[in-house]
Amino acid sequence: MNKPEVYSATMSDQCEANVYHVDLGDRSYDIHIQPGCLDALGSVMRGLFPAAGRCLIVSNDVVAPLYLERVERSLAASDWAFSSTILRDGEQHKTIDSWNGILDALMLARLSRIEPVIALGGGVVGDMTGFAASCYRRGIPYVQVPTTLLAQVDSSVGGKTAINHPHGKNMIGAFYQPSLVWIDPLVLGTLAPRELRAGIAELIKYGLIRDAGFFSFLNEHMDELLALHPATVAQVIYTSCRHKAEVVMADETEQGVRALLNLGHTFGHAIESMTHYTVYLHGEAVALGTLMAARLSARLGYVDDSVETDIRALFERCALPVEIPSFSADEWLDAMGHDKKNVGRRIRFVLLKAVGEAFVADDVDEKAVRDMIATF
Amino acid sequence: MNKPEVYSATMSDQCEANVYHVDLGDRSYDIHIQPGCLDALGSVMRGLFPAAGRCLIVSNDVVAPLYLERVERSLAASDWAFSSTILRDGEQHKTIDSWNGILDALMLARLSRIEPVIALGGGVVGDMTGFAASCYRRGIPYVQVPTTLLAQVDSSVGGKTAINHPHGKNMIGAFYQPSLVWIDPLVLGTLAPRELRAGIAELIKYGLIRDAGFFSFLNEHMDELLALHPATVAQVIYTSCRHKAEVVMADETEQGVRALLNLGHTFGHAIESMTHYTVYLHGEAVALGTLMAARLSARLGYVDDSVETDIRALFERCALPVEIPSFSADEWLDAMGHDKKNVGRRIRFVLLKAVGEAFVADDVDEKAVRDMIATF
Repeated sequence: MNKPEVYSATMSDQCEANVYHVDLGDRSYDIHIQPGCLDALGSVMRGLFPAAGRCLIVSNDVVAPLYLERVERSLAASDWAFSSTILRDGEQHKTIDSWNGILDALMLARLSRIEPVIALGGGVVGDMTGFAASCYRRGIPYVQVPTTLLAQVDSSVGGKTAINHPHGKNMIGAFYQPSLVWIDPLVLGTLAPRELRAGIAELIKYGLIRDAGFFSFLNEHMDELLALHPATVAQVIYTSCRHKAEVVMADETEQGVRALLNLGHTFGHAIESMTHYTVYLHGEAVALGTLMAARLSARLGYVDDSVETDIRALFERCALPVEIPSFSADEWLDAMGHDKKNVGRRIRFVLLKAVGEAFVADDVDEKAVRDMIATF
Repeated sequence: MNKPEVYSATMSDQCEANVYHVDLGDRSYDIHIQPGCLDALGSVMRGLFPAAGRCLIVSNDVVAPLYLERVERSLAASDWAFSSTILRDGEQHKTIDSWNGILDALMLARLSRIEPVIALGGGVVGDMTGFAASCYRRGIPYVQVPTTLLAQVDSSVGGKTAINHPHGKNMIGAFYQPSLVWIDPLVLGTLAPRELRAGIAELIKYGLIRDAGFFSFLNEHMDELLALHPATVAQVIYTSCRHKAEVVMADETEQGVRALLNLGHTFGHAIESMTHYTVYLHGEAVALGTLMAARLSARLGYVDDSVETDIRALFERCALPVEIPSFSADEWLDAMGHDKKNVGRRIRFVLLKAVGEAFVADDVDEKAVRDMIATF
């Protein structure tokens, strides 16, 4: 296990837990953020699932060598029987076949309806494990143990589970809440720098859609964040989880306000799809999509050009990509699920009214989108 | 379209609708039972989904030639755009592959989140379509238009959707309620007699688990039912839907009382699995399983032997199978999902205390099950 000295040493100064309770009636759960908490997973799960004997751990071939043994030790110490299944890392493996592999592992483990599955990994592991948990025996509990910044601040919270379909990202899935989100910020010490920066793009998103103060905070503290300064890391994870949870509590199944979380995602998903999920990380594609949303907002008169400039400057400090890949307007619209035959139709986008205030525009003219694309 | 004269002629005498409202909060819906209502599907759906433009019809290669055109005509008359996908008929096609085919059709049709899918067929079509609806874009509405007696009285109501896994029946699925159940009893006129009788096994189940009077009624009116006497058919469908809905409203996700609906199903599923879903219809397997549950209840002292005798006599009148297929006790227990290594463990069954009163026994000794199996 590779625990970088500089980070764990300072982090140990402030080991208290930050807990945010997501209140969703009988689907409520806690988000628990605490340095080093990975080793306490077995015991907290013993308390949460007193009648369960077995569990299954789902991880991937990058995370498992780093953290699986520690999780297994923690489970064994609290009298859990367990098995594990290891997926291949990467968005291109977020498929029906991988999901089916998790189901096979659940069958083999013969988990009962009350026995949980653990998602130990990033967003892909969490999304696929959550969807498998929602389907196996029509639903068993699952615990999110996110190991990337992106998963810690976004995908592990809120119960959106999914797999990709050849015709679109996250098109097959379920709204299915976890029983617990267990976040150990120390695991970010082994995260590839590129993955860390992709996660930061989602942090910036929260600032842009609902918290101008947080956007300023990120501007001021970006260097500390990139250096994994412990107080900064803990604060931004907590703030982001709170934002995500507040939105989810207001709109669990995305009938309204939850759509704001998709700022940059319509373009971002199109980029991922057109590049076959192999060129950009999700957070990188979202960063590019956010720049496009900012430009579209400006061209429609909602904000001035400085908003895009400010976002771009912050992305550049994180070494996030800022060059929009080149495709024809038809390719963009097709990848966004818009039929080329429906010329002149109006399209739905999340746009910005200001830094800290996003809104859903239902009536964007297709031509405005084409014109915006042509400016890149 | 093949509408038998004798049935439709008498049925037209009483064309009023029977509507049962299933109250599940924001997942509530109506069960509508009315001879000839198939032709009104498009207009009722127009009222239910005013903002939807398109829908997808899922059917199978037996039902589609009989009823698809009528449904399409009804949809077109109410300004629906639609497409259809036709599955192969039979429980052996209730697979991940078939389900994936429905998802592909949904993708191709580009249905939005508010546009519905129609399940036109028996339980297999309904279960797979419901599960696909629950997953596509994390959930779109679906309408059950059941065309077999079994689906009309059982599987179309209550939101249990699923597909089979090589390791077990209905192991992958979701609790996902339909937006409407639209039952036209006239379509039973084209149902194969064997399918009709398999459905009757589920009717008898409601009598056994919670309504001794209904069991008596079925005994008295079985000949009329087998001859599709309209008043009798309408009454038994309504009574069965009411029973099913009452149980579902009390326990939507099968935490307790809903398990009683599984009388005969533990053994029945094992029979289907051991015979690879090719020998028995689901209702036939459940009939056999019900006989085994009755014998186990008697051997454990809950009822006397006459209960099994009475059930067997009624099944024989419907030409339902009553000969339990021959497998070893190990094969039975394995097919029921019980690990052979756990010798001496206690197993959960739905048993009978009387005709009209079922209960869940959590503590049945494995040896009692083995001994019961040996008596066949």
